[in-house]
Amino acid sequence: MKLGRIEGTVVCTIKDDRLKGLKLLVVHECDVHLEPTNAFHVAADTVQAGPGDLIMFASGSSARQTEKTHGKAIDCAIVAIVDSVNLV
Amino acid sequence: MKLGRIEGTVVCTIKDDRLKGLKLLVVHECDVHLEPTNAFHVAADTVQAGPGDLIMFASGSSARQTEKTHGKAIDCAIVAIVDSVNLV
Amino acid sequence: MKLGRIEGTVVCTIKDDRLKGLKLLVVHECDVHLEPTNAFHVAADTVQAGPGDLIMFASGSSARQTEKTHGKAIDCAIVAIVDSVNLV
Amino acid sequence: MKLGRIEGTVVCTIKDDRLKGLKLLVVHECDVHLEPTNAFHVAADTVQAGPGDLIMFASGSSARQTEKTHGKAIDCAIVAIVDSVNLV
Amino acid sequence: MKLGRIEGTVVCTIKDDRLKGLKLLVVHECDVHLEPTNAFHVAADTVQAGPGDLIMFASGSSARQTEKTHGKAIDCAIVAIVDSVNLV
Repeated sequence: MKLGRIEGTVVCTIKDDRLKGLKLLVVHECDVHLEPTNAFHVAADTVQAGPGDLIMFASGSSARQTEKTHGKAIDCAIVAIVDSVNLV
Repeated sequence: MKLGRIEGTVVCTIKDDRLKGLKLLVVHECDVHLEPTNAFHVAADTVQAGPGDLIMFASGSSARQTEKTHGKAIDCAIVAIVDSVNLV
Repeated sequence: MKLGRIEGTVVCTIKDDRLKGLKLLVVHECDVHLEPTNAFHVAADTVQAGPGDLIMFASGSSARQTEKTHGKAIDCAIVAIVDSVNLV
Repeated sequence: MKLGRIEGTVVCTIKDDRLKGLKLLVVHECDVHLEPTNAFHVAADTVQAGPGDLIMFASGSSARQTEKTHGKAIDCAIVAIVDSVNLV
Repeated sequence: MKLGRIEGTVVCTIKDDRLKGLKLLVVHECDVHLEPTNAFHVAADTVQAGPGDLIMFASGSSARQTEKTHGKAIDCAIVAIVDSVNLV
């Protein structure tokens, strides 16, 4: 998984039926020192994440292994809100 | 998922049987500021997207999680037309 | 999906049993302007593509969604011969 | 698979239900000469790895092919502790 | 699929149960001109490959589509020994 911060929302009226009801958020990927990288993703929210939250997301088919994203055309899902990253 | 703009079509007469009837579009990937990147994709359309539309696409096995692409050799599908990207 | 040109063949005598009978071709990836990129792939042919043909290929699990590649260790398959790419 | 060293932990209180009980570790990817690269991952631990351990991890859907990660939103899992890499 | 040369072995005593009995090899990725690239992988062997062999490997879920790797946390598998690459 990767880390990121929520930096916005994506609004779509016309979309695949199964995507209805999912919240789509802009995720700015961070490295493990919590510095922003150049990578952005649009991810489905499964944990009620909000603007500025540090989150963890899963990509690919793993993004569909949640109650909310199962069987949907979602290749990126926010699956946790990160309390801390503890480097040793 | 990622964002992109429709910039063309791909026409194929000889193709895998299951791909028949699918519309194949050229997607020019954008970043979240809607600036074009260097990445292009050929994607199956599932939402009647047209030239110039700002769209969201899903990649990998997630591209097959729609009525139109299920069980087909499609690794990139347009799954929504984007109304707005709201950065915070 | 991505575009490419057929630039060769790969011959393997010793291989996983399920790969027997599949034609393996060298694909030189192109961009949507049909200019060659730096990327090459070995892909299973499903559409009788020949040297120089402009083709479309699918990657990952999507490469297995054809009659010929189903259930096989194929992560790249040629799934169409491209007649034209029409940019708008 | 790729190699890496354990360099920390990630703590999340709010997370997808199925992730509960999984230990999430920071993996700093290494090359085969065991030199660190620029890539970092958050991975689920399946082998009781600890700080500084040289490990092997699997990515994508393969990360879910263990007892501990099956059916969970995990796209990176630590699946072995590496004793030695023997180059020839 | 991609090409590579076998350049070593990886030994792991502590590993996911399902990985027991699999031979793990270091693969140095080559381009189609058989020149080494900068990419290395740890791959499961399914064809009795040995040091120096030119091989073809499959990545992602496709790496699990062999008798030996089915259902295991393997994201890269050696699936053929390459006799020749014939560019046209």
